[in-house]
Amino acid sequence: MSKDHINVGLIGFGVVGGGTARILAENAETIAKRVGAPITVKRIAVRSLDRARDFAVDPAILTTRPEDVTDDPEIDIVCELVGGMDPAYDLVMRAIKNGKNIVTANKEMMAKSGNALLHAAEQNGLDFSFEGSVAGGIPIIQPLKQALAGNKFRKVAGIVNGTTNYILSKMTSDDADFADVLAEAQAKGYAEADPTADVGGFDAQYKTAILASIAFNSRINLADISVEGITKIAKRDIEVAKDLGYVIKLLGIGEDLGGAVSVRVHPVLLPKSHPLASVNDVYNAVFVQGDAVGDVMFYGRGAGSMPTGSAIVGDIIETARNIRSGSTGRMGCTCFDSKPAVGVDQLEAKFYVRLVAHDRPKVLASIASVFGDFDVSIESVVQRALPDGDAEIVWITHKAIEANLRSALDVIGRLKFVAGVQNSIRVEE
Amino acid sequence: MSKDHINVGLIGFGVVGGGTARILAENAETIAKRVGAPITVKRIAVRSLDRARDFAVDPAILTTRPEDVTDDPEIDIVCELVGGMDPAYDLVMRAIKNGKNIVTANKEMMAKSGNALLHAAEQNGLDFSFEGSVAGGIPIIQPLKQALAGNKFRKVAGIVNGTTNYILSKMTSDDADFADVLAEAQAKGYAEADPTADVGGFDAQYKTAILASIAFNSRINLADISVEGITKIAKRDIEVAKDLGYVIKLLGIGEDLGGAVSVRVHPVLLPKSHPLASVNDVYNAVFVQGDAVGDVMFYGRGAGSMPTGSAIVGDIIETARNIRSGSTGRMGCTCFDSKPAVGVDQLEAKFYVRLVAHDRPKVLASIASVFGDFDVSIESVVQRALPDGDAEIVWITHKAIEANLRSALDVIGRLKFVAGVQNSIRVEE
Repeated sequence: MSKDHINVGLIGFGVVGGGTARILAENAETIAKRVGAPITVKRIAVRSLDRARDFAVDPAILTTRPEDVTDDPEIDIVCELVGGMDPAYDLVMRAIKNGKNIVTANKEMMAKSGNALLHAAEQNGLDFSFEGSVAGGIPIIQPLKQALAGNKFRKVAGIVNGTTNYILSKMTSDDADFADVLAEAQAKGYAEADPTADVGGFDAQYKTAILASIAFNSRINLADISVEGITKIAKRDIEVAKDLGYVIKLLGIGEDLGGAVSVRVHPVLLPKSHPLASVNDVYNAVFVQGDAVGDVMFYGRGAGSMPTGSAIVGDIIETARNIRSGSTGRMGCTCFDSKPAVGVDQLEAKFYVRLVAHDRPKVLASIASVFGDFDVSIESVVQRALPDGDAEIVWITHKAIEANLRSALDVIGRLKFVAGVQNSIRVEE
Repeated sequence: MSKDHINVGLIGFGVVGGGTARILAENAETIAKRVGAPITVKRIAVRSLDRARDFAVDPAILTTRPEDVTDDPEIDIVCELVGGMDPAYDLVMRAIKNGKNIVTANKEMMAKSGNALLHAAEQNGLDFSFEGSVAGGIPIIQPLKQALAGNKFRKVAGIVNGTTNYILSKMTSDDADFADVLAEAQAKGYAEADPTADVGGFDAQYKTAILASIAFNSRINLADISVEGITKIAKRDIEVAKDLGYVIKLLGIGEDLGGAVSVRVHPVLLPKSHPLASVNDVYNAVFVQGDAVGDVMFYGRGAGSMPTGSAIVGDIIETARNIRSGSTGRMGCTCFDSKPAVGVDQLEAKFYVRLVAHDRPKVLASIASVFGDFDVSIESVVQRALPDGDAEIVWITHKAIEANLRSALDVIGRLKFVAGVQNSIRVEE
C-alpha cells in the first residue's frame, strides 16, 4: 500500500534550510495535490536552538543532534543542507544506511564524493538527488538525466557562480576596476569576506565537475579540472573586449572531445550574440550542446534561500512520488563510463592577448614573428599609442594549441622592447 | 522481475518519427546504459510503405496498419507522431486500453483532449508524456512538473512558434515588410504554403494551453484563450519600438491572477533587457515565474526532426525507467484545480498606440483628452511630421483596462482629424 504521508527531516537550517521549510509550508496544499500526499517537515537539526531565524517553525521539531534526523524511523527523506565534507558526508552515509532517501545541495560533497554516495544509495534502493548543488533554482541536473537523456552531449558551459558574474557585469556596466567592485559586492553581501572560493573559480570548479560528470556519464576528478579565476581581469580587458564585440564571462566548461573529456573553469571572451553573453548580475545560466537537441540554455537565479529551496523541494517532491509508487532508486548513478581527461595545455582555442611594448619600428613584426615560430597565427591585431610613448597591442589569434601560445608568450614577455604581457584570455565561439 | 528489454512502436514516420528512430539507433548504446536496458523500435506504422525516408529502417518493421502497433502485445511504449485529432485520438485511446504507455508530440490533441487521455492513462496505471508538444527539444513540461514543482507559478510566457519568431526577427534585422519576409520564409521552408496556423497565432494557442494547464494545474480551454497573430505588425511598428527600447515578439502568456487565470497569445513590445528579447530566428524560449524560484528561462530549438526527436526520446527513456521499476503512472494528470478564465478585456496592461492624424493645432490635446475620458493615462507620446502634412503620433499608456483602451480607440478612430489608428500593441514589463 502506498504511503499516504511523507516525512522530511532537515539537517541544517540556514539560508537554504529556511527557504526549503518556508516553501514546504506556504505551498503545502498545492504540493500535496501534486504529490498525492502531504509532505511534513518532522525534524530539523540545528547548531543552536535559540538562534533567530527568517522562517519560524515549531521549536519542538528542532534538535541539536543530527542523529535525531538520520535515525528517526518515521523520516522518509533526509535533506542535508549544512554544506562541506565534515560532518555532512558521515551524516548522509548514516542516513543512507538507515534507509533514508537523500536530497542535498552540497556541491563540495558531490564533487568530491558523489560517486560513493550515489552507489551507496543505489545499493539500498534509495533516491539520491542534488539539483540544488548546481545553479541554485535552475533545473539542470534533472533535464540532463531525463528530458535530454537521448542526447550525447558535446559540451556544457555554465555561468555557475553569481558573485563573479555580478563583479564582471558591474565592471562592464560601470567601467569599474575589479577591486572596487569586489569591495562593493562584499558590502552588499554578494561576496564573502574571504572571496577566494568565488573569485578564484573554486566554487565553479565543484559545480562544473558535477555538470560534466552527469553530461558525460564519467566521474570527473577535481584534480583534472584546470581552474583560473577572474582576479587578473582588468577594466581595460573588458573595454577592449567590448570594442571587439565580446563580453568577458567566467565559464565552467566541459567538452567531450570524442572519448576524452576536457573540463575547466576560466574567463572567456564571448561574442555578444552568444546566449550566455546577456546573462548578467547574479543570474546563472547553463548552456548545453547535444547531438540531437542542438543548443539549449537554462537561465535563472543561481543562489539564495528561495531559489535553492525551490530545487530542494523539487527533489523532495520527485522522491515523494517515487516513495509512493515504490520506485525509489529508479535512476541510479549514471557515471558508467570512465573517460580520460585532457589537460588544458593540449586544447586548441582562439586567444585574446593584450600587451604593452615600446613604440618603435618593427616591434609589431617582431612579436608576430615569435607567434609564428610557435605555430600561432593571428586573426587580428589592434595597436594603440599610450600617453607615455609605449603602445598597447591587442591580438586575437586563430585557433592554436594552448601550450604553444604559452611558450610564445614566455618568449614575447622576455623581448627587451616588450614592457609586459598584460593578459591572455580564451575566446569562445 | 524488471523488464530487460523495452519495445517501442511508432505511429507516424515523418520528420519527427525519423528523428526519433535515428536518435534511438545512433545513441542506442548510451541510452541502454542510461536506462539499464536496451530500447528497440519494433514496429512503425506508416501511410505508404514505399516512400523515400531520411532515416532508413529495416522495411520488415514497417506496416500500414496502425493497429499493428497499438495491438502488438510485445510493444511497451507507443509513440503517436501523426499529429491532429483524427485518427490520432482514437489510436492513442486504443493503445491505452491495450495497456501501452504513450509518448506524443501532438499539441492539438493535447490542447483539445489532453484531459481525457491523461485520465485514461492514469486509470490504467500508464505513463503518458508529451514533452515534444511544446517548444520542440526544450525541456519545459518535465521541469514544470518535477524540478519546479515546489512553486506556485505566477506566469508562463513563451516564444513557442519558430515561424513567427523568424519573421519578426527578420523584419527587425533587415528592416523588411511582413509580406516580403513571409514569402522568403515560405521559400526556405520555414513557413507553410498556408501560413495561417503560425502567423495567426493558432499553433501558439495550442502550446500555450498546454503550458498554462500544467503551470496552473487547471485545464485551460482553447475557447478561453484570446488569440492575435502577427499579420498586423508593420515594419514601422518594429522601427518605432526599437527607438523606444523595445523589440516586438509574439508571446503565449498565462498568468495566475490569484485564483483566476488569463491565457492569451498576442504580440508584445518587450524591453530589450528582457531575457526573451534576445531570442531570435527559429529559436524558442519559455520564461517562467515561480513564487520560490523567481524568473527562470528555457531556451533552444522549438522544432525540427532531431530537436523534437530529442524530446520524444527523453520521454521514452523516462517511461522505460518507470516500466523497469514498476512505477508507470507515478505522475498522473496534474489538472486538479478548476480556475475561471478572465477575458483579455478585463486585464490591465500598458499599450503602445500608433496613429496618424492631420497635423493641426490641438490635435494632440484632443486625442489625449479622449484617452483621459476612458481612464487611460499616458506615459509618453512622440509626434513626428509625415511628408504629406500629416503627423504620426506614438503613445505609450500607463496600465489601463484593455476594454477602456479599446473604447477610447473606437472614439479616437472616428475623430475627423484622425486619419487612422495604425496599431495598438500590449507592452510587457
